[in-house]
Amino acid sequence: MTSPSADLSGVPDRRVVFSPSGRRGVVQEGTTVLEAARRMGVDLDSVCGGRGICGRCQIEQGSAPGIPQLETALSPPGPTETDYRGRRSLKDGRRLGCAVSIQGDVVIDVPAESQVHRQVVRKRPEVANFPIDPVVRLHYVVVDPPSLVDARSDVERVAWALEVDWGLTGLEFDTQVIQEIHSALTAGDWTCTLAVHDESQVIGVWPGFYDRLLGLAFDVGSTTIAGHLLNLSTGDVMASSGTMNPQIRFGEDLMSRVSHVMMDPEGAHKMTGVVREAMNELAIELVGELGRDTTEILDVTMVGNPIMHHLMLGLDPTPLGGAPFAPVISDSLDLVASRFGLELHPGARLYVLPLVAGHVGADTMGAALSEGPHRRDDLQLLVDVGTNAEIVLGNRSRILAASSPTGPAFEGAQISSGQRASPGAIERVRIDRETLEPRIRVIGSDVWSDEETFERDVSDTGVTGICGSGIIEAVAELFLSGVIAGDGTIVAGTERVVADGRTFSYRLWDDPEILVTQSDVRAIQLAKAALYAGIRLLMDHAGVDAVDEIRLAGAFGSHIDPAYAMVLGLIPDCDLDRVWSAGNAAGSGAIIALLSKSARAEIEDVALRVEKIETATEPRFQEHFVAAMGIPHTEHAFPSLAARIELPAAVEGSGGRGRRRRRTND
Amino acid sequence: MTSPSADLSGVPDRRVVFSPSGRRGVVQEGTTVLEAARRMGVDLDSVCGGRGICGRCQIEQGSAPGIPQLETALSPPGPTETDYRGRRSLKDGRRLGCAVSIQGDVVIDVPAESQVHRQVVRKRPEVANFPIDPVVRLHYVVVDPPSLVDARSDVERVAWALEVDWGLTGLEFDTQVIQEIHSALTAGDWTCTLAVHDESQVIGVWPGFYDRLLGLAFDVGSTTIAGHLLNLSTGDVMASSGTMNPQIRFGEDLMSRVSHVMMDPEGAHKMTGVVREAMNELAIELVGELGRDTTEILDVTMVGNPIMHHLMLGLDPTPLGGAPFAPVISDSLDLVASRFGLELHPGARLYVLPLVAGHVGADTMGAALSEGPHRRDDLQLLVDVGTNAEIVLGNRSRILAASSPTGPAFEGAQISSGQRASPGAIERVRIDRETLEPRIRVIGSDVWSDEETFERDVSDTGVTGICGSGIIEAVAELFLSGVIAGDGTIVAGTERVVADGRTFSYRLWDDPEILVTQSDVRAIQLAKAALYAGIRLLMDHAGVDAVDEIRLAGAFGSHIDPAYAMVLGLIPDCDLDRVWSAGNAAGSGAIIALLSKSARAEIEDVALRVEKIETATEPRFQEHFVAAMGIPHTEHAFPSLAARIELPAAVEGSGGRGRRRRRTND
Repeated sequence: MTSPSADLSGVPDRRVVFSPSGRRGVVQEGTTVLEAARRMGVDLDSVCGGRGICGRCQIEQGSAPGIPQLETALSPPGPTETDYRGRRSLKDGRRLGCAVSIQGDVVIDVPAESQVHRQVVRKRPEVANFPIDPVVRLHYVVVDPPSLVDARSDVERVAWALEVDWGLTGLEFDTQVIQEIHSALTAGDWTCTLAVHDESQVIGVWPGFYDRLLGLAFDVGSTTIAGHLLNLSTGDVMASSGTMNPQIRFGEDLMSRVSHVMMDPEGAHKMTGVVREAMNELAIELVGELGRDTTEILDVTMVGNPIMHHLMLGLDPTPLGGAPFAPVISDSLDLVASRFGLELHPGARLYVLPLVAGHVGADTMGAALSEGPHRRDDLQLLVDVGTNAEIVLGNRSRILAASSPTGPAFEGAQISSGQRASPGAIERVRIDRETLEPRIRVIGSDVWSDEETFERDVSDTGVTGICGSGIIEAVAELFLSGVIAGDGTIVAGTERVVADGRTFSYRLWDDPEILVTQSDVRAIQLAKAALYAGIRLLMDHAGVDAVDEIRLAGAFGSHIDPAYAMVLGLIPDCDLDRVWSAGNAAGSGAIIALLSKSARAEIEDVALRVEKIETATEPRFQEHFVAAMGIPHTEHAFPSLAARIELPAAVEGSGGRGRRRRRTND
Repeated sequence: MTSPSADLSGVPDRRVVFSPSGRRGVVQEGTTVLEAARRMGVDLDSVCGGRGICGRCQIEQGSAPGIPQLETALSPPGPTETDYRGRRSLKDGRRLGCAVSIQGDVVIDVPAESQVHRQVVRKRPEVANFPIDPVVRLHYVVVDPPSLVDARSDVERVAWALEVDWGLTGLEFDTQVIQEIHSALTAGDWTCTLAVHDESQVIGVWPGFYDRLLGLAFDVGSTTIAGHLLNLSTGDVMASSGTMNPQIRFGEDLMSRVSHVMMDPEGAHKMTGVVREAMNELAIELVGELGRDTTEILDVTMVGNPIMHHLMLGLDPTPLGGAPFAPVISDSLDLVASRFGLELHPGARLYVLPLVAGHVGADTMGAALSEGPHRRDDLQLLVDVGTNAEIVLGNRSRILAASSPTGPAFEGAQISSGQRASPGAIERVRIDRETLEPRIRVIGSDVWSDEETFERDVSDTGVTGICGSGIIEAVAELFLSGVIAGDGTIVAGTERVVADGRTFSYRLWDDPEILVTQSDVRAIQLAKAALYAGIRLLMDHAGVDAVDEIRLAGAFGSHIDPAYAMVLGLIPDCDLDRVWSAGNAAGSGAIIALLSKSARAEIEDVALRVEKIETATEPRFQEHFVAAMGIPHTEHAFPSLAARIELPAAVEGSGGRGRRRRRTND
């Protein structure tokens, strides 16, 4: 150790090293750890501004070569820490960075929970983590009470404290805050906590110290509305829940809801009202689970398809009902939540992710934010299948997006025995290649139908129908078994194939009778051809004929077996180990946008850079569509599948060309 | 004339001179007059962006030496002008600047009504005129309808048109506008008019061309609320009206209203509610007179004393009820009017002028904006007398302000026969220097009481009491007649002086009996001493002992005779020709702020620069107060008065020192 140097005042300098940042510097003896961290740009949290109240700046003493862990290097616990221990627990070895001063050369460990910008670790290994950087933050201030020599206004004295203690300048104050600030200051004995949005707008005020900051991420889908309640300080998802979108009573699918608006001009108002009401109920449910209150919610984010986006915001959705699908607004929106009927904290903000176009929505941008094609060097295909398939293809240098009119077949609609993915629905199908007899599994059970316990296991629901992923597997297995020909025709050859007028059906289940009809197969062919043609069109524009990775987002993407999707040709060839379900990627995007200001800027930039490809006007889309009707279509190759699915010999041979590499234009 | 030059394209250049600006330049033949004006920075109005709809860009052809008025110098009337004449009248000689092109060297006269920044000429000769520069402006745009090759959002296409046609960038759109823009565009066949606030926020949208833009200036006083309806395009005051402040039922004066709030926490809400309701009723009355609608009102300004300011905005006024009088907020406020209960256009904005301190209000800043001490080289004293006197003293380099606790005597309260200034109240008093008999005049009549027609003239109301200006004149005349001594004591000497216990009263009127009691004189002495002491304190701080000009604002200032105010020593010595009533200067300030964006910046700057002098903590205030109790106090001099008032010989002598010049510190 070197001997301490001293400045002219005679106070010795001390060397400080912060870990894990590795930042090092020299401070005067007696400097608090929080102050040293601020001067050296070390990320050490504080809400109370170093007054020993919030406990966010906890640190531990560490050691490093040349700087042993000497007990005398930090000041002993004083009244501030003793007070704090009286109110809250402080783990062994932990100290309050604002209360402890540096007395000797020292190493300071900043645990993850004391960092403002700590990483949020996501559960899926294939997605990026991101640092917490919420747009709304709490700041505690202590002001001088007014006196005859200092009769500045309440707002002025608070603004001054926010500038001096927190470096915030040019702040605007919400009306509500101006109206409440005086009573907060008097109730808090001239201390208060302010919520500041985007370092520019003061949106809430509470007397004294206040530390409850919740955020809410909404994914407003046509069928369900999902909500996630987050602690904006820690980044933890505290509760998640979903509710049926009550707009369903105005029409099952989006287009019928738009038609409803066209017929009844009041329809849009009603649909806006019911969706906002459902969001409020969801908020109440989520905070209720934790014994918290909706007024603790200060920030909200929302994703949704363009029609849900317009209906929730009270915008006329009719232009989205037909070409040219021009939305009313596509930019991201930074709004006051109460103006949109959300009954949260009166100053709560509502951030709505941008749309790309009238048919590529904020949900797609949410999924893109979560899956991050724009953050990658290799080429990612991101597909979200609903009534329309929204497709994003790209990498760091280029992003393309399109919407393809798949229709609702993948959701089990327009299928003779189709139903939503709910208990009792067939979701897995295997056809014996020899006997052509089926085995099934239904949602709610892990047991195959040829196992003994099946009947007992499904006795609650029975077998009720077939869902989207079930019909995909059924058609794919029937094709692989030779029951369906390459052109989609059901051919005879087993007593399970029954004539139905001029066409045939395959009897998948007996009681109740569940058929895969020729028209079911045609519906799936149409849907998958539309999806594939859209993907293909984007690949053409990108100048590639393979992709490196595929992410399947949404409920359909979660249930479908990628191997069968590839057999049927829904998606292009890709290493199956790199085809992932992205789960509720749109909702994940809403969560990320809620926790990270930089993520908002990132996705706004992506939305501006996206090249919108219009499937309706591109003649090549029709060509690809026609070419993609057959199974397997000519572009398809099976090497990736052989390990996963029992392929018949004839089909295996067709994959001889092997997997082609992508060619990029850039 | 020189022969026309021509550029490489072969199109000849033409010389253009605009009058009255005198700007001159050269443009290519065929350029429209509007385009030439824009390029040369000439102030030529247009709402429709040069589409021949609004008629704002009307010009006339003129002549100048070297440029005779040749008929061929402007293009002949084409279909745009013919169309316009079919819809609206166009004066002889007038042409539409957007429709007529320059064909030869030409002089263009721009009439005042075609200038955006034309001067508003105010009726009072002593105040400055100012250019119209409203904060809210209307802009007409024509956009391309959406198509498959251009499916931008409605907002994007409108934002683009506002940028290309009007140079407006980075605009934000009000929620309401986003919600209405689609129906406006479809109803307007892809044209619409936007209201833009401060070149930054789009606050209204109408289908097609829309040209109705009203503004409302409020002066919210303790007793009355005045409203002025303005055409924001022309700057014309279209209607003015006033209504009683319904808060009077919670207390006549401000302090009793604050006490009411302290006793009843709901009281503030109720007072906020009734004042907003009265403002709405006033708005309806004002637009009703013109057959217009409140939804045409897009911008509102408001002045008021600090307590009215706080109550109207829903802020807690209790801190204004006592020292240290710290307001909740003192900065100017740019608000959404609907958030404050004003039922106008939903996007209407509300600009509230700044306060200086808890007892120097937005009304004082309004008066300062109107009277402009800060725009002058010489020293102006601006006094607004109410329950408190708000006093501003300054010039271009320095501005000071204070509030002095005059009490309500000047408003006729605390006076035995006192009443508000309404018909029947004595407002003028003369005492015969020999007989000591009074003559009076009452509000509502021009006849003195010693004239024959007096009784008939006042038969409707009778003589009901004495108002603030009346009691000032009575006390001053009684002093000048020797009935009141220099220390304020009423002395015997006429049968009109009647004993009243240990003191005397002067009987000013017999039926009903109206007395000037000793306690009335004391109340006036206290009030005038407080006023003078406040003025004197500011003069001390400014280092002067005279002022160049005095403006008396408000109702009291309108009624009082400056000569008597000077006799009693309410105001310091000043050339009487430079003592003016400023009328409703606060209201004029609200009007100016409504018409002029730069005026808002100006008064915000003044509010920041004002030196607040605290009368309550300055020992000198007490000294001045005590010294100012007598009549005439020792500082006073009468040369300015001799020409206006019949002074008794003894008093005249006391003015021997003559008028002293001010000494400034700067």
